Amino acid sequence: MLANNQEKNISRRAFLNQVGKVGGAVAVYGAMDSLGLLGNSMFASAAEFKAPKKSELAMVNKTGKKVIILGGGIAGLASAYELSKAGYDCQIFEARDRVGGRNWTVRGGTTETELGGVKQVARFDKGQYMNAGPARIPQHHVTIDYCRELGVELEVFTNINEAGYYFHENAGPLSNKKIRKREIKADTRGYVAELLTKVANQSALDQELTSQDIERLKAFLSSDGALNASKKYTGTGYRGYLEDDLPGAGLKPGTVGTPHAFKDILESGMMNQFSSEYSFDQQMMVFQPVGGMDQIPKALAERLPGKITFGAEIREIRQSADGVRIVYKKGNGPVKQVTGDYCICTIPLPVLSKIPADFSPEMKNAIKSIGYATTGKIGFQFKTRFWETEDRIMGGMTTTNMDINQIWYPSYGYLSPKGVVIGYYNFGQSAVDYGNLPLKERERRALAQGTKIHKQYTSELEHSFSVAWHKIKYNEGGWASYSSSDRKNYYPTLNEPQGRIYLAGEHLSYLTGWMAGAFESARIAVSRIHERTLKETRKPVTVG
Amino acid sequence: MLANNQEKNISRRAFLNQVGKVGGAVAVYGAMDSLGLLGNSMFASAAEFKAPKKSELAMVNKTGKKVIILGGGIAGLASAYELSKAGYDCQIFEARDRVGGRNWTVRGGTTETELGGVKQVARFDKGQYMNAGPARIPQHHVTIDYCRELGVELEVFTNINEAGYYFHENAGPLSNKKIRKREIKADTRGYVAELLTKVANQSALDQELTSQDIERLKAFLSSDGALNASKKYTGTGYRGYLEDDLPGAGLKPGTVGTPHAFKDILESGMMNQFSSEYSFDQQMMVFQPVGGMDQIPKALAERLPGKITFGAEIREIRQSADGVRIVYKKGNGPVKQVTGDYCICTIPLPVLSKIPADFSPEMKNAIKSIGYATTGKIGFQFKTRFWETEDRIMGGMTTTNMDINQIWYPSYGYLSPKGVVIGYYNFGQSAVDYGNLPLKERERRALAQGTKIHKQYTSELEHSFSVAWHKIKYNEGGWASYSSSDRKNYYPTLNEPQGRIYLAGEHLSYLTGWMAGAFESARIAVSRIHERTLKETRKPVTVG
Repeated sequence: MLANNQEKNISRRAFLNQVGKVGGAVAVYGAMDSLGLLGNSMFASAAEFKAPKKSELAMVNKTGKKVIILGGGIAGLASAYELSKAGYDCQIFEARDRVGGRNWTVRGGTTETELGGVKQVARFDKGQYMNAGPARIPQHHVTIDYCRELGVELEVFTNINEAGYYFHENAGPLSNKKIRKREIKADTRGYVAELLTKVANQSALDQELTSQDIERLKAFLSSDGALNASKKYTGTGYRGYLEDDLPGAGLKPGTVGTPHAFKDILESGMMNQFSSEYSFDQQMMVFQPVGGMDQIPKALAERLPGKITFGAEIREIRQSADGVRIVYKKGNGPVKQVTGDYCICTIPLPVLSKIPADFSPEMKNAIKSIGYATTGKIGFQFKTRFWETEDRIMGGMTTTNMDINQIWYPSYGYLSPKGVVIGYYNFGQSAVDYGNLPLKERERRALAQGTKIHKQYTSELEHSFSVAWHKIKYNEGGWASYSSSDRKNYYPTLNEPQGRIYLAGEHLSYLTGWMAGAFESARIAVSRIHERTLKETRKPVTVG
Repeated sequence: MLANNQEKNISRRAFLNQVGKVGGAVAVYGAMDSLGLLGNSMFASAAEFKAPKKSELAMVNKTGKKVIILGGGIAGLASAYELSKAGYDCQIFEARDRVGGRNWTVRGGTTETELGGVKQVARFDKGQYMNAGPARIPQHHVTIDYCRELGVELEVFTNINEAGYYFHENAGPLSNKKIRKREIKADTRGYVAELLTKVANQSALDQELTSQDIERLKAFLSSDGALNASKKYTGTGYRGYLEDDLPGAGLKPGTVGTPHAFKDILESGMMNQFSSEYSFDQQMMVFQPVGGMDQIPKALAERLPGKITFGAEIREIRQSADGVRIVYKKGNGPVKQVTGDYCICTIPLPVLSKIPADFSPEMKNAIKSIGYATTGKIGFQFKTRFWETEDRIMGGMTTTNMDINQIWYPSYGYLSPKGVVIGYYNFGQSAVDYGNLPLKERERRALAQGTKIHKQYTSELEHSFSVAWHKIKYNEGGWASYSSSDRKNYYPTLNEPQGRIYLAGEHLSYLTGWMAGAFESARIAVSRIHERTLKETRKPVTVG
């Protein structure tokens, strides 16, 4: 069944790709119409997206419509960027004085006033930065394609580093010790392999596998777990060597450390952290733009000269059968309005829910029903890279069950004198707790926890900058946090156009919290508007 | 027993470090003498190395001795670099017209004539290169410290990428298919977790673990293997999604692929490839210098102006009680000789074994007894990065059981138009087989295999350059390949100074094949010569 659907999709796709190559979007549109495919699904995949072209509009004697875009984050910028390729008249209204939205790189001089009035100025040195929002790009995300197209240079984001530590409190005999991830992983693989080999030898698997498969399994377990000749796990170089007796030159074969007891590992719970590295979007390789994540919105904005109105707070979102009308206000200036043919609204739902808008009651209800993640980060600029010189950790993360959750070592500037470490990146109640603290208290609390792992924390700290996304104006949350019932009850509504208004943003995707969700949702909105523009040509609107 | 020795070593070390901080190397030397520690072991650890200082020699009214260094690879350069810090008069004799030895970055214009007379000229574009020799630096290696000290900028070498493929031939139902590594890993974890959970539920582990530990193990297995509520493995997003139905924006939750059957995986043997990623020196993170591995020898050479004689083939290595005498020849020039107080000889053993030298019979026997690895690489410059644009593989490797062994995707220049892929990196008989082929045949054979994985191989190829290390003059092999009996019978001899001559190089280490072995062995030779120089001061040699 699955296979059949797949085949059907592939052949349709192949056909439409062929049509597209020959005739462009209009031809595709016609073909789709014939195939009865004019639903949403055709525009939902990044691979299938074709940017609108001037030639397509010209073929039907049209120029682009005027599209008002609310929000200059990734979704808004990408919408304007793609529509502009075909000559649509796009105007972005952005409440802040910068583009990017949650794609926000904090550097020396960056200021932010949280809801509640607490103001911060970042004092990082030149060249030092923290990506307060998105920080990593999986290789399969469409974000990579935009980086290629925009000339944004990439480098590896060190999402997985075996030299990072696990540090768990209240977790049995391994509590309060920083233990290299490689040790816990190798020991766990070893013990699991030993146990399964033992039961295999006792015929416990004979019902499950053939004897040949059992032999293959046992051979695999021996290599995977580094079992000895007696099929016992007694340690392996995979877990690393004693840090003062590494393999070296001369008469130094190095000494493998003694494994942790399996019961201690099980009690510690450290092994339950492994799977966080397995998820599709967290597996290596993962990337970041050289010089900060905001290289992406900056590159998009460069291609949209004169099309972005900064400092414009949206006050009303209105529409009629003929067009949209957006009311906005810049600082202390007068209330203004702008009209257009369509609107793409990328405003995060907690903010949008407070703006008067011509949406259906069902849409309004959906907008106000979606919760957003509470999440926070702190950046610590340290005057030395002690994690590199003393811990020999080059990038990657330390993972803990303390409420700082994790420590990120920087993925840029290796070997240089200073660096910005992410001292916490947490979620849920931990993020609320930190967000509720005064700035200095956030720093103090994260420092106290980090000092348990890195004794140099306090002496080496120069500056910190913290962000609590649920307290950031114009965002009020990290990302849309859908329950499965939300996906059923509200998500389809959010995806339906409201007259001439289309929502876009990470919240219009199954890639919530990822820039790719914003990019792909923008592509859907763009495709729908372009499709509608082409379609209207075939059925001209009677005026008057 | 182990713990006691460790403690003893640590307290000695702590003591000597303290002495060193206060009094420098001379004081350390005296203290070591008192402790009876003047063996090799003190200088064997990178962390303990202290570069000789001018002040130490000045304290005993000495200037540095003259040290002749044979070979301008990592070990030779590092020896000269460290000795020069204290004012030793170092002169490196290097047979080639470049530094680096096996640390060799091939760029457009690089030429090489193999033993046998086959000549190659690399025709890579500007900015494209292949590291023909060492290509990666684990974060715990001393090589990292040298990069820091020398200002060599680092970037990540993408040693592990879950998007890379396994491709096995003659391996059952999964044969001749390129399968993402993440699929095989997630499926294997899932099935292993399912099996162990099942036997745990049947009380098969009750002898091994307490009931509480079994519950913890089962909880871990459920998360690690992504088991469903019935504790079955039926697939997971960890293995990735259907490539034409990834999670996206709009109504696209994505579809997880169907797991491979466990018996098929077991028959394929692909799971036996996992452990190659576990070894201490292959785990992430791993690094490379920006711009090519030869940035390291180049940086060392810059600090040794006028101290390197290029094109000098060593013809004899002689010594007396008073000094060393090295006979060399530059091209068609006359045979020359140079004298010095000491010699550090870094010439690879297969080459050294053919040079007349004043070594003991035991040393000569050891030198000729050590086998060297046969190994080869081919670099393919492709005109497009199809692995990035079509396979969405950004760096990392594909692993195969064909005789190309592996394909490496470049760890630099992401998103740029072209790239150099390593088309094979193989060892043993495969390397011999490829090395025996004419250049065009090496290319043809590697292309034919690679084309099974990447159909674009042939159409996109621009240039290739191949190296068979066992056929490279002045090396004649990849690295010292010690058996455990070699380590027992010959290795200690190689580590003993021969009068005034000290061997150094990766072959004088337990880090064979790694630059760190060369660096650390250089540190030992340097420390021994410095120690001896300081010691001779206390017991002046009677001359005449």
